Formats: sequence, C-alpha cells, structure tokens
Amino acid sequence: MKTKMSRRGFVGFAASGVVGASLVSAREAAAATPYEPIPLDQPTSLWDLPTPALVVDEEALDHNLDKMASFYRNKTTKLRPHVKTHKCPILAQKQLDRGAIGICAAKVSEAEVMLDAGFADILVTSPVVTKDKIERVIELAKKSSGFAIVVDQAQNVRDFNDAAAAAAIELNVLVDLNVGTDRTGITMGAPAQALVEAIHKSPALKFGGLQAYAGHLQHLSGWEYRKRRSEVTMGQAVELKESIEKAGFDVPVLTGGGTGTYNIDSEVDGITDMQVGSYLFMDVNYRNIGGKEGAVYDDFRPSLLVLATAISQPAEGRITIDAGYKAFATDNDSPVLRDIQGVSYRWGGDEHGILQFKNPSRRIEVGDKVLLIASHCDPTVNLYDHFYPYRSETVTELWPIAARGRSQ
Amino acid sequence: MKTKMSRRGFVGFAASGVVGASLVSAREAAAATPYEPIPLDQPTSLWDLPTPALVVDEEALDHNLDKMASFYRNKTTKLRPHVKTHKCPILAQKQLDRGAIGICAAKVSEAEVMLDAGFADILVTSPVVTKDKIERVIELAKKSSGFAIVVDQAQNVRDFNDAAAAAAIELNVLVDLNVGTDRTGITMGAPAQALVEAIHKSPALKFGGLQAYAGHLQHLSGWEYRKRRSEVTMGQAVELKESIEKAGFDVPVLTGGGTGTYNIDSEVDGITDMQVGSYLFMDVNYRNIGGKEGAVYDDFRPSLLVLATAISQPAEGRITIDAGYKAFATDNDSPVLRDIQGVSYRWGGDEHGILQFKNPSRRIEVGDKVLLIASHCDPTVNLYDHFYPYRSETVTELWPIAARGRSQ
Repeated sequence: MKTKMSRRGFVGFAASGVVGASLVSAREAAAATPYEPIPLDQPTSLWDLPTPALVVDEEALDHNLDKMASFYRNKTTKLRPHVKTHKCPILAQKQLDRGAIGICAAKVSEAEVMLDAGFADILVTSPVVTKDKIERVIELAKKSSGFAIVVDQAQNVRDFNDAAAAAAIELNVLVDLNVGTDRTGITMGAPAQALVEAIHKSPALKFGGLQAYAGHLQHLSGWEYRKRRSEVTMGQAVELKESIEKAGFDVPVLTGGGTGTYNIDSEVDGITDMQVGSYLFMDVNYRNIGGKEGAVYDDFRPSLLVLATAISQPAEGRITIDAGYKAFATDNDSPVLRDIQGVSYRWGGDEHGILQFKNPSRRIEVGDKVLLIASHCDPTVNLYDHFYPYRSETVTELWPIAARGRSQ
Repeated sequence: MKTKMSRRGFVGFAASGVVGASLVSAREAAAATPYEPIPLDQPTSLWDLPTPALVVDEEALDHNLDKMASFYRNKTTKLRPHVKTHKCPILAQKQLDRGAIGICAAKVSEAEVMLDAGFADILVTSPVVTKDKIERVIELAKKSSGFAIVVDQAQNVRDFNDAAAAAAIELNVLVDLNVGTDRTGITMGAPAQALVEAIHKSPALKFGGLQAYAGHLQHLSGWEYRKRRSEVTMGQAVELKESIEKAGFDVPVLTGGGTGTYNIDSEVDGITDMQVGSYLFMDVNYRNIGGKEGAVYDDFRPSLLVLATAISQPAEGRITIDAGYKAFATDNDSPVLRDIQGVSYRWGGDEHGILQFKNPSRRIEVGDKVLLIASHCDPTVNLYDHFYPYRSETVTELWPIAARGRSQ
C-alpha cells in the first residue's frame, strides 16, 4: 500500500520530539533555545517520565561539581573541563561558574555549538587536517581570540599558517604530544621541539603550549598503580616543557589529565590545567577502576542515570526493560541498577535490556520503573536530545544536549 | 572566566547543524521537512563530506530493496519492514513503493514520527505498559485504523481495552508470542490461547493476529543450522495459529522473521509477513553469519558506510581516524574497511578509531578519507541526524533520520 508523506517544518518537528512526551507545550518548546533550560508545563515526578529517559541526579551532580572545584581551588593547576562528556552549554556554564578557566571540545562541530552558545575559551583537543574543517576552525578563531587548536605534524602547521594568514588572523596553536596513548600526538623529544619551532616560525600562528593527554592511563585499575604510571608519563611531559623553555620558548599551557588522575596529576608541578570530564556524571567504567580510598572509585557520585520501564516478563528470574543498545553506550561495561541489589543487567538487543534476578533486594514487576547507572557516560549522553535533571524525585525542566551528534 | 550564553531559536539551531557542513544554505535547511530529502546547494563529491559522515551507497541500496521485493513478489508471505533499522520515512517509502504491506516500529515515539510522516499501517512490535504511553497509543490509533500494537499479558489487555473504550475506538491488538527469545511475549500454547480469548472478550479491542519474532535465531551462524532452528520455531507458531483457528478465532496475521531468515521463513506455510530490516544496509554482524551460498552472507550488499578521515599517525603500522564510539555501534563486531584489505579497525575511544596495518592493499596517509562498513546498522544509524546517499561518488541531498533517538 502506498502512503504519502506529509510536509512539516523543522520547528514543528523539533517541538514534536519534546511534545511527544506531553511534558512541554509546543509553544514553549518552539520558543526555547538549545542552550538554556526548557521549563516543563508543570513539575513532574521522576517516575512519570517517558522511558528510556536520561536523567541527572542534581544533588549528586552538585556534589561532583563542588568537590572537583574545591579540590582545585588553591592549586596552581586549574580545570579546563571537556565538554565532549556532556555536550551541554548549561553544564559547561556550571563548570565555569565554579572556576574553570575554559573548556575543551573534541571536534570542530562540537566547538561550533559551544562558541555559538557564548563560550569564548575553547580548545579543540583532536587534530584537524582537512581543508573544509581548517576553514571552519578559522571561522571560529575569527569570532574568539580564546579559541585554540592542537597540531601534531609539520604539514598541518603549514596548512593552518596559510589559512590563518589568508584570513589575516593569529591562530592559537598547541602541540599535541603522544605521551603513550598512540592515538594522536607527535613523538616526544626532538620531533616535538621541532614542531614548536615550526609554529614559532609561522607568522600567522601563536604557540599556545603543549597538550599531554594520557588517555591510556585514565582507566587503569588501582589508584597506586595509576599514580605510578601517571607520574612517570606526566613527568616526561613536564621535562619536555622545561626543555622547550630552555630553548627560549615560552610554554604558557601544559594541558592534560582527566577524571582518573584528578588527584594525581594535580601534584605534578608544571601541569597548568586538567581536561576533566567524567567526574560530573561518573559511570560504571570509572567506578570499577578503584579510587585512592578503596576498590570502588567513589570520590564522585553517579549522577547520570537512565530511567527504564519493565515491559515484559516472558520467563522466571528475569524481566525485560525498554532500554538496550539505543539507550546506553555498549563499548565496555553494562549498566548497573542504582537502588536495587541482586539484579544484573544484560543486553537484550537494540531496544531491550534483560534484568536477571539473583536475590533481588526489591521486587520488580511489569510496569515498574528502574534507575540504571550509565555504563559509559560520554557515548550514553550522545544518544539523547536532552537531560531531565531532578531533585527530590521532581523534574521541572529539560536541559538540551545541544552538541549531541556533533562528532565532525 | 565567566561567559554568557546567547539566545537562539530552534530553527537557527536545526539549520546550523546542517549548515555547519557548509553544504546546505540556512534558508533551504529551515524550509525543509524532516521527512523529505534536503537538496545540497550543489552536487558534492562523496570524498568532500565532513567526517564522520553516515553515507549510503545507493546502488547497493537499490540492489537490496529490489532483491528482497522481487524474492517476495509472488509469495503469499509479504514484507512488513521494520523501520527501527533506518528511522527514515524516505526509506520506508521506498519499501512501500516496492510492495511492502506496512511497516513495523519498535517503540511508540518511533511510530509517532512515522505516522506524522504519513504512514498509516504501523505495527508497534514491543509491549507498551505505562499509562502515559497507552494514552499515546490511543492517540495514534485515533488517527489511523491501520495502527496496531502487541500485548503479552492479561492486565495489559484490560488496560488497553479501558483506554480504547474511553476514547470510543476499536484498537487492533496482536498477541506477542515468546518463541524462545525470552525477551518479550507470552508462553506458547494455553497461555497464548487464553490471551487471544481475552482480547476477543474485550469490546474495544480487535484481535489482529500473532507476532512470533525469533530474534535469537536471526544471527545464528551457518544457514543450514539457522534453517533447522527456524523451521522448528516458526512451525510451532504456525501450529498455535491453527489451534487458535480451530477454536473458532480468525488469525489474520502471523508476523515474524527477519533478514537472517528471509529465505527460510518464506517457505513456512502460514507466516503472513516478514519483519525484515537490516537487508537494506547489511552490516558486519550479518555478513559474518553466513548465507545460503557461502561463509559470507552476501545476498545483500553493504550499503551503509561511515566515511572517516585519517587525522594522525603517532606510531608506525597504524593510523588514527576520527570515528570511534560516537560514530559506530559498538555492541558486537568492529567496522570493516570496504575498499582496502590488510587493514583492521580497533576502537580508539569516544572520538577515534585505530586502523592497524597488516599488509595494506593501499596506503593510507593523514588527510585521506576511508569508507567503513557499519558494525551494526540499527544502532549506528541512531547516532546520526541524516544519511548522505551517493551515486557515482556524488552526493546531491541529505535524507533526515527523522526518528533518531526515538526509543521511548
């Protein structure tokens, strides 16, 4: 049978996604910006949200924001949070309000959203090498002198110098170091020094410093082991920084670190700022690596949860929920129930998860809703259009995930 | 440093996501609907798209669409494609144009998008149990008599009957059978028969038939093994259907099957329609299960690809691309390079993938773009806002993924 597709504008559509939930009027949704909270028509119980819903426990969130800010308050090392975790200007603002010196973005399109939302100091942490994206970087740099990029090869320095010169601007450029992650970054030592010199010789470029992001260390299990490894790695980056300074070049920034080493790298003299991200939400991955105080890394509390509904019980000892591969990141650990013990989650396909009962601390029946701690926060956030923040089990607004899908 | 967030409307934002790519003018993007192709400002080479980009090889797509349609053309069993795979009204229309009798949607919010796009015959294949979603189902049923749901428990039959009676409509209801997937569905035999009777006794419900979706069989390796297992399973569903008919109830529909059993279940007398989805795109998961003709399941061609850019080479024997957990589904297999042999992909985190060279059939250097076959099509599609279809390496329009993120 043939059917005909109706015509409908982007506004109607953008609104319908929200209005489908019957929580926000079409008028309000259409008037809202993607950078500010969208008020619900009326306060709603957490347990009445349409599932799967990405919810944020605001008390846990505030605890995490405050604890990290307080930890860094009197240190020379500062915070430059990575917005690739939350992709949400509302959350970036909360980080800046608590003393962060700027933000990191993973990709150009993510930075475009953040600059458009009004953020000025943005470092794009991944190399940008194609002509079209170099042009987009130049457009961003024209709008904000606080905008910066990283490079890890000589041809890229020439390309950016040409583009910046053509646009008559000075572009802030950091050298990305391969500190052992073997993902991006130039080889430490002489090759890195040569790249710093090449930037200095480029009239349209300004050398902004060094990026030493040790991604391979962030999730190492055991705090002591992580500490030993990170001290060696970040120590080498500091040595390189000193060597470049001895050669006569100022190195204003040595940026790196993350949630896994927040209380390790902070003690390494010479690191200027930390690219923390996951501390805001935490997740099953991070909890499993262990903290300074014990086998569970619980310096920060899980604040990012998925609310799901039990929709079927086809067999004893298990129940099916409406949240699967499209509701959670699947790259590593599985989600974990926050409030119920003796129940484990296993993947049930694109749209479903299976809760398996061992000795459940609470009964779960068809129609019940459950809260699950996100398996891996960043790619889970990237699946949703908005967060529902809640306090005392009550939701009053949506927070749009403005940079969702912006991985270009 | 504090910064201030700017105000901006949804239209500007919706457009900016597309315009960021500099391929579509703001005016065109704002005027476009999410259900129809959005023309690019000018034809663009596939290789000039901003990456990571979700691209569709239209020749492969047409081959897949035509082959499946042709295979079913003279059969009594018909096609009821599952739109959870593509979430795109443009693609659903191509399936209907080739003879599909209707579509399946996984969840209510996905069905809302499809009904809004003009599709009338939609079966929601997963149970819906909460009050808010039951109300949304009633709204959809009011708009289209071709709308249908599944149920797998008695309380749910009562709830839907109450809601349909209150709205003064007759709701089309299928019984979802647990044919061994143990995910959703009522136990075969007497419990299923009793549920059919309960529907018949519900004045506001119309019994639409049976759903026997054997999800656990679709990806079994080896065609012969899959065939033996599916014949037994679907045979039991047909027996149940006959038993219900003997009891005096008409069973107009027995729906099930998928891409893995498209040429198996089609031979089982009594199955009315097939919920095929992945055949449109194929993916690494499906290719690995083997087909009737050999170890690789290549009845259908991989048409869903991610275009990525090599952005760094920090170590010998590997190169880093800009596509990681946020660019591909990660639930099972890894992506595979389509046109280059001797290179394997491994995950490099949220934003990166690592291409490891064994004995590459072609050199890959920083700045080069590569095409990768999607690891798992459905959850990969769900990461993107639109497809870029191409023919002869040329892209002329975008296809919006209108139901992306609609898993509620």
